Amino acid sequence: MAMFKFTEIRKDQKSQARTGIIETDRGEIKTPVFMPVGTIGSVKSLSSEEIYNLGADIILGNAYHLYLRPGLEVLKEFGGLHNFMNWEKSILTDSGGFQVFSLANMRKITDEGVEFASHIDGSSHFFTPEKVMEIQKIIGSDIAMVLDECVDPEAPREYVLKSLKRTHDWAKRSKDFPKLEGQAVFGIVQGSVFKDLRIESAKFIKDLNFEGVAVGGLAVGESREKRLEVLDILSEELPKNKPHYLMGVGEPVDILESVERGIDMFDCVMPTRMARNGAVWTITGRINLRNAKYTKDKTPIEVGCGCLSCKAGYSKGYLSHLIKNNEILGHRLTTLHNLHFLLSLMENIRESINNGSFPTFKKDFILKFNDKIDTG
Amino acid sequence: MAMFKFTEIRKDQKSQARTGIIETDRGEIKTPVFMPVGTIGSVKSLSSEEIYNLGADIILGNAYHLYLRPGLEVLKEFGGLHNFMNWEKSILTDSGGFQVFSLANMRKITDEGVEFASHIDGSSHFFTPEKVMEIQKIIGSDIAMVLDECVDPEAPREYVLKSLKRTHDWAKRSKDFPKLEGQAVFGIVQGSVFKDLRIESAKFIKDLNFEGVAVGGLAVGESREKRLEVLDILSEELPKNKPHYLMGVGEPVDILESVERGIDMFDCVMPTRMARNGAVWTITGRINLRNAKYTKDKTPIEVGCGCLSCKAGYSKGYLSHLIKNNEILGHRLTTLHNLHFLLSLMENIRESINNGSFPTFKKDFILKFNDKIDTG
Repeated sequence: MAMFKFTEIRKDQKSQARTGIIETDRGEIKTPVFMPVGTIGSVKSLSSEEIYNLGADIILGNAYHLYLRPGLEVLKEFGGLHNFMNWEKSILTDSGGFQVFSLANMRKITDEGVEFASHIDGSSHFFTPEKVMEIQKIIGSDIAMVLDECVDPEAPREYVLKSLKRTHDWAKRSKDFPKLEGQAVFGIVQGSVFKDLRIESAKFIKDLNFEGVAVGGLAVGESREKRLEVLDILSEELPKNKPHYLMGVGEPVDILESVERGIDMFDCVMPTRMARNGAVWTITGRINLRNAKYTKDKTPIEVGCGCLSCKAGYSKGYLSHLIKNNEILGHRLTTLHNLHFLLSLMENIRESINNGSFPTFKKDFILKFNDKIDTG
Repeated sequence: MAMFKFTEIRKDQKSQARTGIIETDRGEIKTPVFMPVGTIGSVKSLSSEEIYNLGADIILGNAYHLYLRPGLEVLKEFGGLHNFMNWEKSILTDSGGFQVFSLANMRKITDEGVEFASHIDGSSHFFTPEKVMEIQKIIGSDIAMVLDECVDPEAPREYVLKSLKRTHDWAKRSKDFPKLEGQAVFGIVQGSVFKDLRIESAKFIKDLNFEGVAVGGLAVGESREKRLEVLDILSEELPKNKPHYLMGVGEPVDILESVERGIDMFDCVMPTRMARNGAVWTITGRINLRNAKYTKDKTPIEVGCGCLSCKAGYSKGYLSHLIKNNEILGHRLTTLHNLHFLLSLMENIRESINNGSFPTFKKDFILKFNDKIDTG
């Protein structure tokens, strides 16, 4: 039926926080939403059934990674990523911009596009705004992102200005590219930590009238303070009738702060990556299961937690043993726990906004959570 | 209630094949049985819930590995392996003999025991028959194995003779060791490929009156022909009223041939290890998902297969992509398939013995399966 629709449901009285519903051809997505990252076609360690059971309505795929592996030929043959990975709900694809600038060996950036060497085999590739739209058409994602340049947070204003012009030009070209029916396209606001450039970028992207607007180039090394300042400014500039997506953010406190500033969508590899390293979230903060003190601990990560690991009664001692010995089951159980933690947090955030208690919920959560990092 | 009981249910008319039931404090085990291997306290990649769902009644743990990791202190604290890994059905533990002689850096073997260096950190350890019984007491397995020396299949008769005397002496010492209540202890028949030594060993072990008898030192590099010759001889010597366990065998054709010769129990890392490398079993033989021809294959490993991977519709193309990129989900789905394949085979074997059609079942299975190896 080829639709994409965003409806704001409830707006918080005291902040920009809001709940909403995004509708795609593949179902409804309640916002604020966290999208688990399935880099090359699998949310690392989890089956599609497990992701459904976690309650996720949308996951993220990565155009850069999927273009390299399994490659477009295979994705075409399967009729897109949904069929390939056995996932019937929505998928958002990242354009690959961030990976080209961070992971690949970037060769040359011009106004036309960017030449880079694959991080897998060093082979040479050229991405243009049109090319990444074409790739995302083949992937068949429900939401595609435009190609942008993600600049270093330390880059001088002069470079950011030049880069922003290019990013805007690329956004325009992406907008002009013939769309896949039913696929929404989001523009991306850049401008580093320069407030006036962020405002300029927001206005420019807003005028192109994409289905949604993302904020890129944050959570790339700048301080939380700087990041929140940018969001403060943008919260006035982002179009109210479109979903706002903060790319690459997934830390609980960051999410709360960003929701307060009007962000509706999040993604981050953090919950899954840190899980595989043995770091898990609890309501009183982050703990690391590699810490010697957990070796004989018979309690689950969090008593009362509804995740598969805690519910089944896997102990911190057992998880610690699995993680230390690189056993796959350890990666799975901690991943399930962290994603459950984050998706529950999103659910609680939505509920608190809907019943008018978001500011209290946020304050109480942060007080308990307190960014405590058990680095042991 | 502290019990261990073996009851033969049905004996095949034309061979030594038989069905039976082993009862332990933790439930019934239908034989012939395959025991998935959970080396250091997890059947690699699977949760306990998944192993229950596969229909396994017993899994294998490894005294050598568990002694090194997580170590006896942790296992004591948890009251044994069942609690530690969240598994309520039966566990058999291997004594560690095979690992000391194959995996560890063996330092010195004397009549007293064996000194070895850990394959993890090179630390020095000394195993005696009594020590491994003590370790298995702490693990709390339902079936413990005695320490034996597993000799190279190329070893000269002279050495095998000397080693066998020691293995028998160790068996006697193990039998004399005060048992954990409810824990059965199995003796192990050795003797390499020398028929008279195998017979001598079978008689010796039989006389010690263990709860079960294992055949060790096979599937260590000798030919299938030699292996079956040994089993042919032993099938007359093994006590009829005890379960017969062939250690380290898990290839489908080998299992059928061994069941025909009176074997009741099997274990092997093969189905799980080969799965992680992308090799999976089908009724028409073994295939390797890394083979280029599967890249665009949209069908499951086996149409009609009831395993989680095939039932959910994960395609060979997708599995191939996951395996080639070392994605955890690939390891999980292929492991689930292979174990389902093998546990179904065991179920079909039991059914065919019970309804008198085992010889036909065996012939038909092998004809189709034909040991076809797709090495691509």
